[in-house]
Amino acid sequence: MDRYVISALVNNHSGVLSRIAGLFSRRGYNIDSLTVGVTENPEISRMTIAVRGDKFILEQITKQLNKLVDVVHLEELDPDNSVFRELIMIKVKATIDRRASIIELAGIFKAKIVDVATESLSMEVTGDQAKLSAFINLLQPYGIAELVRTGLAGLERGNATIMENYLKE
Amino acid sequence: MDRYVISALVNNHSGVLSRIAGLFSRRGYNIDSLTVGVTENPEISRMTIAVRGDKFILEQITKQLNKLVDVVHLEELDPDNSVFRELIMIKVKATIDRRASIIELAGIFKAKIVDVATESLSMEVTGDQAKLSAFINLLQPYGIAELVRTGLAGLERGNATIMENYLKE
Repeated sequence: MDRYVISALVNNHSGVLSRIAGLFSRRGYNIDSLTVGVTENPEISRMTIAVRGDKFILEQITKQLNKLVDVVHLEELDPDNSVFRELIMIKVKATIDRRASIIELAGIFKAKIVDVATESLSMEVTGDQAKLSAFINLLQPYGIAELVRTGLAGLERGNATIMENYLKE
Repeated sequence: MDRYVISALVNNHSGVLSRIAGLFSRRGYNIDSLTVGVTENPEISRMTIAVRGDKFILEQITKQLNKLVDVVHLEELDPDNSVFRELIMIKVKATIDRRASIIELAGIFKAKIVDVATESLSMEVTGDQAKLSAFINLLQPYGIAELVRTGLAGLERGNATIMENYLKE
């Protein structure tokens, strides 16, 4: 199944998130990740929704999303012309004798150590999905105690902005 | 209004996100941010929900969340004993003569340049809310073309894990 990433400008109201997520789930369409935050304009939030599934059903969902009053603008981010990033926080089991080798791996992946405890080490790292998967796989043998992912954020490359694309419509 | 950060383990089903977001919005409780991703166990997703509002109403919502079949475990992250991070991607207007000063700021905030175009520069940066606000404010004079935030991810400091807390219940 192909992955699609949608970027949406929505009104910053309570209830928008639930309605948008509901539109996907009612069609049995699983959301891989959904991130939302305010934009440069505090009345408008921006969502990045990563989904996996059938292109035809996605087109139907997109049409319904566009009909929601609180959806200002919606577009699919072209993977060949966009940058996608995700933040993960990961707590790894780390006894004293293993700490050095974990810190070495963290350095290679430009992960930042955010907490050190007697038997664990917590890190944050950002990247695309391939890099993050590789990092998680390398940490697996130490024992992953906790893994928190934010989900994808994405931007179109170049000078274009989603707001300009919207105003051009 | 105080900010609260809730960490939840939920079943990785379509529909969970919409039901949880709906519980907050039906009480007019605004979600500041919500992030969700799979955990070390692919059947379980972990959500970090940041909200702002009345403590009493939040307790009522928490009780109702705990009654949802798909909610495995829920806890409030104590800000004094947790690390919170967010990822933002930001596209700044950057003509050639301004590029160097933006890159200098990026260096100070350990932001990574992810795209350079003729009239703009795109960066990713992670941090707590204070650092991110400071960075955004410093970039404002250049002109912010796009701002995408993932919302908060959070981990308890030390060796404890949310899964262990759950099993101890």
